[in-house]
Amino acid sequence: MAKVLTARDENYSQWYNDLVIKADMAENSAVRGCMVIKPYGYSIWEKMQAALDQMFKDTGHVNAYFPLFIPKSFFSKEADHVEGFAKECAVVTHYRLRTSEKGGIEVDPDAKLEEELIVRPTSETIIWNTYRNWIQSYRDLPILVNQWANVVRWEMRTRLFLRTAEFLWQEGHTAHATAQEAMAEARQMLEVYATFAQEWMAMPVIKGSKTPTERFAGALDTFSIEALMQDGKALQAGTSHFLGQNFAKAFDVRFTNKQGVMEHVWASSWGVSTRLMGALVMTHSDDDGLVLPPRLAPFQVVIVPIYKNDEQMEQSRAYASELRARLAKAGFRVKLDDRDTHKPGWKFAQYELQGVPIRLAAGPRDIEAQTVELARRDTREKQSLPIEKLEAVVAEMLEAIQKNLFDKALARTQANTTRVDSYQEFKELLDSKGGFFLAHWDGTAETEKRIKDETKATIRCIPFDAPDEPGQCMVTGQPSPRRVLIARAY
Amino acid sequence: MAKVLTARDENYSQWYNDLVIKADMAENSAVRGCMVIKPYGYSIWEKMQAALDQMFKDTGHVNAYFPLFIPKSFFSKEADHVEGFAKECAVVTHYRLRTSEKGGIEVDPDAKLEEELIVRPTSETIIWNTYRNWIQSYRDLPILVNQWANVVRWEMRTRLFLRTAEFLWQEGHTAHATAQEAMAEARQMLEVYATFAQEWMAMPVIKGSKTPTERFAGALDTFSIEALMQDGKALQAGTSHFLGQNFAKAFDVRFTNKQGVMEHVWASSWGVSTRLMGALVMTHSDDDGLVLPPRLAPFQVVIVPIYKNDEQMEQSRAYASELRARLAKAGFRVKLDDRDTHKPGWKFAQYELQGVPIRLAAGPRDIEAQTVELARRDTREKQSLPIEKLEAVVAEMLEAIQKNLFDKALARTQANTTRVDSYQEFKELLDSKGGFFLAHWDGTAETEKRIKDETKATIRCIPFDAPDEPGQCMVTGQPSPRRVLIARAY
Repeated sequence: MAKVLTARDENYSQWYNDLVIKADMAENSAVRGCMVIKPYGYSIWEKMQAALDQMFKDTGHVNAYFPLFIPKSFFSKEADHVEGFAKECAVVTHYRLRTSEKGGIEVDPDAKLEEELIVRPTSETIIWNTYRNWIQSYRDLPILVNQWANVVRWEMRTRLFLRTAEFLWQEGHTAHATAQEAMAEARQMLEVYATFAQEWMAMPVIKGSKTPTERFAGALDTFSIEALMQDGKALQAGTSHFLGQNFAKAFDVRFTNKQGVMEHVWASSWGVSTRLMGALVMTHSDDDGLVLPPRLAPFQVVIVPIYKNDEQMEQSRAYASELRARLAKAGFRVKLDDRDTHKPGWKFAQYELQGVPIRLAAGPRDIEAQTVELARRDTREKQSLPIEKLEAVVAEMLEAIQKNLFDKALARTQANTTRVDSYQEFKELLDSKGGFFLAHWDGTAETEKRIKDETKATIRCIPFDAPDEPGQCMVTGQPSPRRVLIARAY
Repeated sequence: MAKVLTARDENYSQWYNDLVIKADMAENSAVRGCMVIKPYGYSIWEKMQAALDQMFKDTGHVNAYFPLFIPKSFFSKEADHVEGFAKECAVVTHYRLRTSEKGGIEVDPDAKLEEELIVRPTSETIIWNTYRNWIQSYRDLPILVNQWANVVRWEMRTRLFLRTAEFLWQEGHTAHATAQEAMAEARQMLEVYATFAQEWMAMPVIKGSKTPTERFAGALDTFSIEALMQDGKALQAGTSHFLGQNFAKAFDVRFTNKQGVMEHVWASSWGVSTRLMGALVMTHSDDDGLVLPPRLAPFQVVIVPIYKNDEQMEQSRAYASELRARLAKAGFRVKLDDRDTHKPGWKFAQYELQGVPIRLAAGPRDIEAQTVELARRDTREKQSLPIEKLEAVVAEMLEAIQKNLFDKALARTQANTTRVDSYQEFKELLDSKGGFFLAHWDGTAETEKRIKDETKATIRCIPFDAPDEPGQCMVTGQPSPRRVLIARAY
């Protein structure tokens, strides 16, 4: 069968685009830079949302919803925020259309807004403007709020899931009585993200602090989880921020503490987005299509009946239908594809392309022997299984696949993490092999910028678990207390 | 204790606003017409979403996501749609801000879009433009897609939940091979809405067809569920539309049928929104606050420990905490409020205001007797309950409350539904009593308009279950085959 995807080692970027579109995850829309998330892709996102939402609630958070629009003046209030944040935003200037004399419709020039509204690129400003009225006393703290929402950043070069003008995300915005609490919250949520990435997405991540240059605009500290994609590039998969009192000061949010003294409130914010969908694809998939971890797969098992004539069709469908019912009853997400409009070979290829973890097929010989053919997507192993063991084997295999995907990704990440001490060697390996590099850096923005300008690699983070290991900056030879994580990144 | 709410019979509209804000459901934001949905309100919406989403999935639907923005030209493509649909929309004209020389930021005049983008007021156009590429053959049909999203309609007079510039909703958009299937889908989804309204919201509804004048712009038939609020005004709580081939023709969406002939696709769309939150408030609540049906209440049970000194505090908290654990284990949504910063009386009033269905309170005498004081929000009945029966009594009482709320609302709706044959009598009763009216109408748009102009009442729907009952139009005396439902409406 002709390959439907470009091979990864031929053109990784093309492979990614092909796969996202052909596996029915997403497609480009008629609106520049905005994607359509198709049902198959959206079903994965829903499972991500559900798992994250439960983790947020288990750590004491509640959901709320704030306006899509932000008055332009709000962006000017926090100086670092307005300076540092990209200004590519969708700007609403009018509020009415009218029928045009030439036919069609046009913008009504009389319906111009006094103050333009910005479609939220992130909600710190509107939320902190709201918190001013919610917070008077220490009794009102902490506020632990999350929002699931769409946001817009007018990116010039877009790629499905990885960088789109509109994307879906969650943004947590918390308010605390002390710096320690806000910092602990930011650290806690990074742990939540790391746990989600590793246990649900089967994607190993490095946790760490961003350098001052790479911090979120308005943050005193930014933490991130970084994952290594198959092509040797890093992907920032989630961030959390300790915002200090910056937004509280900009929006005058104060509280009376237990001693009766007025103080500004301390803040954190944290988010992950549909970008995780891109990370999921580039962590596990292969030249034949998606490979999905069972915990996030829309269907964990697909069943295809095999037959050559109408009589066999009826028997195979009935047999397959019974297997489906058994697996559904046992709590698995299972799909029976008994359409007569497509051949089994087409279906096999389709579900490989869509990354269904386990495929079952059954025809007359299986019925005779009371077996089913079981194929797992990750290793391509096949076996004939007595159906009496079906539920137990499927349960065990789904767990094995989840674990195998993580182990493979971890082994790949480790094999592509290089400790390097010479800038020359770093540059050579970056081009020849890519991956994560652990290197000494002198801690200056100048050296950081030089590395970026000369190699397009960036300091991804200062890993939390980097041991104290005094050395010399690979670029300047100046002293460095520990190694940092460097890579080219998405 | 001073009443925190305006009484309903003093000023219903003020009572509603007070309640929504003071019960912490929602508030107005800094952006004209856009609301903030606060955590308590959002938690109710989440439960509505979860129940509806499950019902959509049980009827074969899947979720997807389409762009927030719609190119202006798309609105001109379906003639009825552009004519009939309100043109109060948020229009994006620019895509970049820049730092102003005067300080602050301003819109960059060089970043003007070639074609303006409209923030979606509804997504028929962008979705049908997308479906064109998804549909070639009858094998690709039906498409049963739903989207959870925010939409914007630039309303001039807004009210929290009932009419806001931005609101949250779901919009289903389905594509079918035949008119019959599309019509059956539209009818099915109205049934889903009615079931949800009655079984979850405990809100009785009348199902029916809209008159041609009141149809959705671009629809051949619109169905709605109509509920009667406490002040005698109707509220349209959900709609579904049979769109015929209008959008398929406008966006050239065709398929090859089983006979190999090209045809345009048939469509339905259907939606409910955060407006349901307003309907929920105005169906059950009273002068002391919200009354929530247990199936949608963020907390079904709240527990308040009672004590007079530190020793009692410790004992009462421990006792209450044990009750909380038991109820949580039994699967109830339960909250323990053991804060020492607020008195029991304050807590009682607060949870009455927030409509928690069952309140438990326990102090030293309860511990002694191994009892708990149980108060139900809807009837205000109190009882002392031996704690050994706790789970069973709570389960039974939650069901009783759910049923009682529905029964009360149904009795109120029935008591306020008047069969009327004289236009004069109709006008008098409309002013004195309000409510639903079942009257004969001659079927013309002229008479419909006259009723609306003269009384501000509108034909809400032609009920599905209206029996054939020939009569004479109450306005013109012309023949009418059956009665229609008329009311003033939100």
